[in-house]
Amino acid sequence: MERDMVIGVDVGGTHLRTALVDREGSILLRGRIETAAAAGVRETSERLSRECLALKDGAAALGGRVRAVGLGVAGKVDGATGKVIFSPNLRALDGYAVAPELAKAIGLPVVLDNDANVFGMGEARAGAGRGIENWLGIVLGTGIGGCLILKGDLWTGDGLGFVAETGHMIVDPAGPRCICGLRGCLEAHASGRALKEGVEKAAAKGALGAGVLRDRLEAGTLDAEAVHLAAREGDSLAKSLFQRMGWALGLAVANLFTVLGIRSAVIGGGVASSWDQFIGPLSESIDRHSCMFDVSEARILRGALGDDAALLGAGLLAWRPAAHFIFPE
Amino acid sequence: MERDMVIGVDVGGTHLRTALVDREGSILLRGRIETAAAAGVRETSERLSRECLALKDGAAALGGRVRAVGLGVAGKVDGATGKVIFSPNLRALDGYAVAPELAKAIGLPVVLDNDANVFGMGEARAGAGRGIENWLGIVLGTGIGGCLILKGDLWTGDGLGFVAETGHMIVDPAGPRCICGLRGCLEAHASGRALKEGVEKAAAKGALGAGVLRDRLEAGTLDAEAVHLAAREGDSLAKSLFQRMGWALGLAVANLFTVLGIRSAVIGGGVASSWDQFIGPLSESIDRHSCMFDVSEARILRGALGDDAALLGAGLLAWRPAAHFIFPE
Repeated sequence: MERDMVIGVDVGGTHLRTALVDREGSILLRGRIETAAAAGVRETSERLSRECLALKDGAAALGGRVRAVGLGVAGKVDGATGKVIFSPNLRALDGYAVAPELAKAIGLPVVLDNDANVFGMGEARAGAGRGIENWLGIVLGTGIGGCLILKGDLWTGDGLGFVAETGHMIVDPAGPRCICGLRGCLEAHASGRALKEGVEKAAAKGALGAGVLRDRLEAGTLDAEAVHLAAREGDSLAKSLFQRMGWALGLAVANLFTVLGIRSAVIGGGVASSWDQFIGPLSESIDRHSCMFDVSEARILRGALGDDAALLGAGLLAWRPAAHFIFPE
Repeated sequence: MERDMVIGVDVGGTHLRTALVDREGSILLRGRIETAAAAGVRETSERLSRECLALKDGAAALGGRVRAVGLGVAGKVDGATGKVIFSPNLRALDGYAVAPELAKAIGLPVVLDNDANVFGMGEARAGAGRGIENWLGIVLGTGIGGCLILKGDLWTGDGLGFVAETGHMIVDPAGPRCICGLRGCLEAHASGRALKEGVEKAAAKGALGAGVLRDRLEAGTLDAEAVHLAAREGDSLAKSLFQRMGWALGLAVANLFTVLGIRSAVIGGGVASSWDQFIGPLSESIDRHSCMFDVSEARILRGALGDDAALLGAGLLAWRPAAHFIFPE
């Protein structure tokens, strides 16, 4: 008998990751390519179909059969229609009926949610959030996503298509312009893009000395990992960018703990690999920006599953009996 | 047969209000005096006992009998011990075992919660929040309190003794110092105290012209109502203070809607009577500080019960079967 499987997909600002997930929540196969959103919606959409079809073949080779696809996409999405409403980090997908188009292309039912919500489902099931009743999730990538787990469940708010968009909380109304158009969002201080732009701004002012940052900038390979490397080597610009990142994250977390009356946060996403550089400033900032609780009461945890959190969560989405599937026409 | 009644008490930064509440949630009698927190904890505590004893007599005169007292106190409180932990606007009560002392003084069981939570219970039962599943409550008084109603219930978070302390969210890290010690809290921009201090600062700089504000300041009767009156008469300082208030409230509401994925807020408290002066700037500010939703989707409602919201809510607290009562020794 064929084993039932699902595909979990994480469509991020930079990478498009896929996984084959069984009913027990184990990941059997993985795929990863660039999202290539800059090349337009058609290219991203074709990559998405191709990756899913490859995993369908992979499932067959394992004696399994794919039943459905769970899709996590960065930004504001509408699960009922399967459309992306507004995605600051994937503007090419704005308004795109990603779930119906994918369902048609691969002949499988597709369920859509926000990428940070699927991260939350994964970490709650098998990661750092396991056993914690209430927590705030923050996903540090090209942009910043978020989720809220309240009373052990993913919080969905009024069903407006967005929730826990922590990246677009304003932490400093006089702060830098964000990609969403607002000024001073958390994302404009603490995302992978903010790190990269911080280096670019310094270079534009002629304030970038010799070293890994200038080398990578000139080679066109500057990314958050390079800024992390530079900070570990003691580069003062890189260190100041992580200082600002920790400051902004700490202010946002302090504000949200103050309002939600909770004390736990799980921070994941690719840029969480720079943990050693921002956790100190983050803790200091929570301390400086809280009057209702002591920073020693706060539990700031690093996501335990890495990239697998969102992949597993997207798979879990497709296993939910109550999932709102979009079927192929 | 004697009718069962409870006493609901709202201990605010300025006023101490009491009400006799029946099982149906009707208010039968009311009392109101000054909290007199500046005179110390003994004075406030004696006033509290005296007011409750007066209502006990009042109940007897109505053929009723008081069974319990529900107490709403501004700040961080511990319902399990009946202690005030930290109250920025009633510092005299910090650490005071208000519920056990009151229980002893009047010989009745007492249940304690935060004043904004009791506001929320009142508005949810019979006010502007009735029938709305998810909403943020903001209580504008001397300070600013808040509550969260999620899935129709008062949200209590991790049970840390505080929740929805919207007043101590930081809206501008470079903003004015707040009474809690932090810089840039919502309360430092948008409370009754912030309005009053705005006038005092202008006076200290010699920038206060002739008019109602100077008259009231010199007479020692300057309060939020006077600033409201001046704004209605076109006073530019008063108008700028309400502009700042609306700006800060709008930024806080936009941030919280973005994170909670909800669209409704109920604003009450004494200073909500200045609604006509701050609702315009508040709406503009929500618009300017949101990228995930349009201000036209937001429902910003004025509390419908006035002072009765917290009184009714405190009474409802004492009627709850699951209430954690502190009994007289």
